Amino acid sequence: MNSLAKSWISISADSDFSIQNIPFGIIKHLKTQHISVSTRIGDTIVDLSVLADLGAFSSIKGFDKSTLTNLYLNDFIALGKTVTSAVRLEIIELFKESNKDINQKYTASFLQLKDVENLLPVKVGDYTDFYSSIDHATNIGTMIRDPKNALMPNWKYIPVGYHGRGSSICVSGHTFHRPKGQQKPADSEFPTFGPSKLLDFELETAYIVGKSTTLGESISTEKADDYIFGMVLFNDWSARDIQTWEYIPLGPFLSKNFASTISAWVVTLDALEPFRTKGYTQEPKVFPYLEYRGNKNIDIKLEVAIMPENSSETVICNSNYKYMYWTMEQQLAHHTINGCNVNIGDMMGSGTISGPEPHEYGSMMELSWKGTKPLKLNDGSERKFINDHDTVILRGYCQNENIRVGFGECKAKVLPAN
Amino acid sequence: MNSLAKSWISISADSDFSIQNIPFGIIKHLKTQHISVSTRIGDTIVDLSVLADLGAFSSIKGFDKSTLTNLYLNDFIALGKTVTSAVRLEIIELFKESNKDINQKYTASFLQLKDVENLLPVKVGDYTDFYSSIDHATNIGTMIRDPKNALMPNWKYIPVGYHGRGSSICVSGHTFHRPKGQQKPADSEFPTFGPSKLLDFELETAYIVGKSTTLGESISTEKADDYIFGMVLFNDWSARDIQTWEYIPLGPFLSKNFASTISAWVVTLDALEPFRTKGYTQEPKVFPYLEYRGNKNIDIKLEVAIMPENSSETVICNSNYKYMYWTMEQQLAHHTINGCNVNIGDMMGSGTISGPEPHEYGSMMELSWKGTKPLKLNDGSERKFINDHDTVILRGYCQNENIRVGFGECKAKVLPAN
Repeated sequence: MNSLAKSWISISADSDFSIQNIPFGIIKHLKTQHISVSTRIGDTIVDLSVLADLGAFSSIKGFDKSTLTNLYLNDFIALGKTVTSAVRLEIIELFKESNKDINQKYTASFLQLKDVENLLPVKVGDYTDFYSSIDHATNIGTMIRDPKNALMPNWKYIPVGYHGRGSSICVSGHTFHRPKGQQKPADSEFPTFGPSKLLDFELETAYIVGKSTTLGESISTEKADDYIFGMVLFNDWSARDIQTWEYIPLGPFLSKNFASTISAWVVTLDALEPFRTKGYTQEPKVFPYLEYRGNKNIDIKLEVAIMPENSSETVICNSNYKYMYWTMEQQLAHHTINGCNVNIGDMMGSGTISGPEPHEYGSMMELSWKGTKPLKLNDGSERKFINDHDTVILRGYCQNENIRVGFGECKAKVLPAN
Repeated sequence: MNSLAKSWISISADSDFSIQNIPFGIIKHLKTQHISVSTRIGDTIVDLSVLADLGAFSSIKGFDKSTLTNLYLNDFIALGKTVTSAVRLEIIELFKESNKDINQKYTASFLQLKDVENLLPVKVGDYTDFYSSIDHATNIGTMIRDPKNALMPNWKYIPVGYHGRGSSICVSGHTFHRPKGQQKPADSEFPTFGPSKLLDFELETAYIVGKSTTLGESISTEKADDYIFGMVLFNDWSARDIQTWEYIPLGPFLSKNFASTISAWVVTLDALEPFRTKGYTQEPKVFPYLEYRGNKNIDIKLEVAIMPENSSETVICNSNYKYMYWTMEQQLAHHTINGCNVNIGDMMGSGTISGPEPHEYGSMMELSWKGTKPLKLNDGSERKFINDHDTVILRGYCQNENIRVGFGECKAKVLPAN
């Protein structure tokens, strides 16, 4: 791919959806209710099922047009990376500037943003969340345990992870009610019941598994990228007060599974490859099954904004995916070292991504330091945690001197407890 | 239903599959590879798709024959309890003794055990495991923490649960390899890596969700039974050494997700109703959303046997589902009190079911008291945990003076680490 290629579709310089991106998602045409696999270029939605009807992709071996009108990307992903990567490259080719004159017929696949709704891109099977940012784990350990032993003894040996709930994963743009549950106030001997008072976001990314394994099989760090289709932004909403009371000894449960939000467009690992960067130096040395070669972190600039009802937004966090201690490849090798099988459509969350500086912390828990340092928003209000009617927006993109590849928004609005 | 009804199909007195049971499962005809929803009566498999072809169920409003040739029960369950309960009652009617002469044509649906293979009955969406046996939680707390404070402070307020991995749930009869992973021996400063040395079973039951909810909806204890289709036996295989090293602070992960085993036949809640019994007296009083009325425990006799390679089995545990502190109805009310949605095919495990007496403990961890009291098997060998080539078999049934309703076997064999 020529990284300097321009498109004959209009794309603003700051768009996440450059011709080098070509993410995949599921859109519904609002007028016809037609559902299709699509991509986005600038502010233009391109319906891949129409492209295929017009003759595109027909020379790609193993391509199957019927996967483009499904409710989820899973069957498209199941065609394999050889096919899906070729589809992406053909789209880039179709819409690059030099091919404008010969490809005018493909404008029939174009839709405007206002005419479509993004649906959940993937039918998530099993969902796992990791805990792989060292700054986040250190901050939490410092706050709730001991600053001198902030990291648990296992943290630098194991990419710690746990199973989450797939059913409550929603696509960007949804609303949800503040969860109710049991909490035990620090000054009370007994628990109470009611709406969570400490609702928090968690700035994460997640990757979508693109190739299945069978029970008993393990994936090496070297082969792991073959099993990673692409990435999304992920807000792992958390109710801190419910979490504190419930999580010992078996981990977070109702404090997490009331709702999670992912961005609508799955950005392929292919599109992210130009932004690979060096990983964390891991000391102590990891076990052989966790060793990896090359640059496996990715320089993804991340931000979080809070938008109160009828007000403008305030950016409260700027972080970066490059701060991850454990890479996706290590997470997948660890997840399968015991023979656990993975399936296409499984989702693996990064865990909250915090950087070393206070403005890079990826949750209110850290940003307000457990509520002791309220944040000031542009409208003059303060936040220790997230209020009813607040919309929380995650954004993320990669940028070098030539190209920008991004995720768009991952946003959701909190409604009062019902 | 006449609880004394006999069948014109031959059924031995000690069969789990009486005419009052009529569980649902998925079988594959070994000769034709045909797959169908089936039931089992005595040692006879009854193919429901053939019954339907012969005219059965045609008067049941909402019945849909096409659900009977699916790979999973999910679409059949989705017809709703009104339909599936009517199907069960019609099967009982077809095969009761007094209808022998008029229903001979239905023998065309009969298959012998040797001619079929049981497949996984349900496509499991999300899987949750609870921790609801007070004797089990007390034993574990006593062993790994403090006998005087064996239960965590939250245990009597919350039906503690956590999310498990759905992908590695297998149907009875499978094998799996001993998992590898990190462990930290008590006498070592550093972790090691290798096959688990402390492989354990966990005697559990699980229920299958039979009705979906939408995000934001909660299920009351009163309505919970409408959402429970039926139950299976469940072996939540656990690698104790991997678990000890990994589980703080986010719970069990690789120590559980290498394999789990369920029994092949889903026994309906309808069939279990005659065996309801009084629940645990819950002190302190639970929160209103967890209160329930009536007898909601179930008297299910449970046993576990170990069968070494080329040897006979030894029963090492006799327990009972009636010992549960938290009921299924409370678990489901708790799971959804925060608005978490559930889907048809979700599976909810009970947690290890131990009774108060040592021979009623539901895991090797408890039976051998952390390996300090080896068990003697019939072949003269000893077990602290589970060896390679051992087959572990769970069994469960309800029995009163008139009828027996059971689950058959839930078994799996451990192969050496690969």
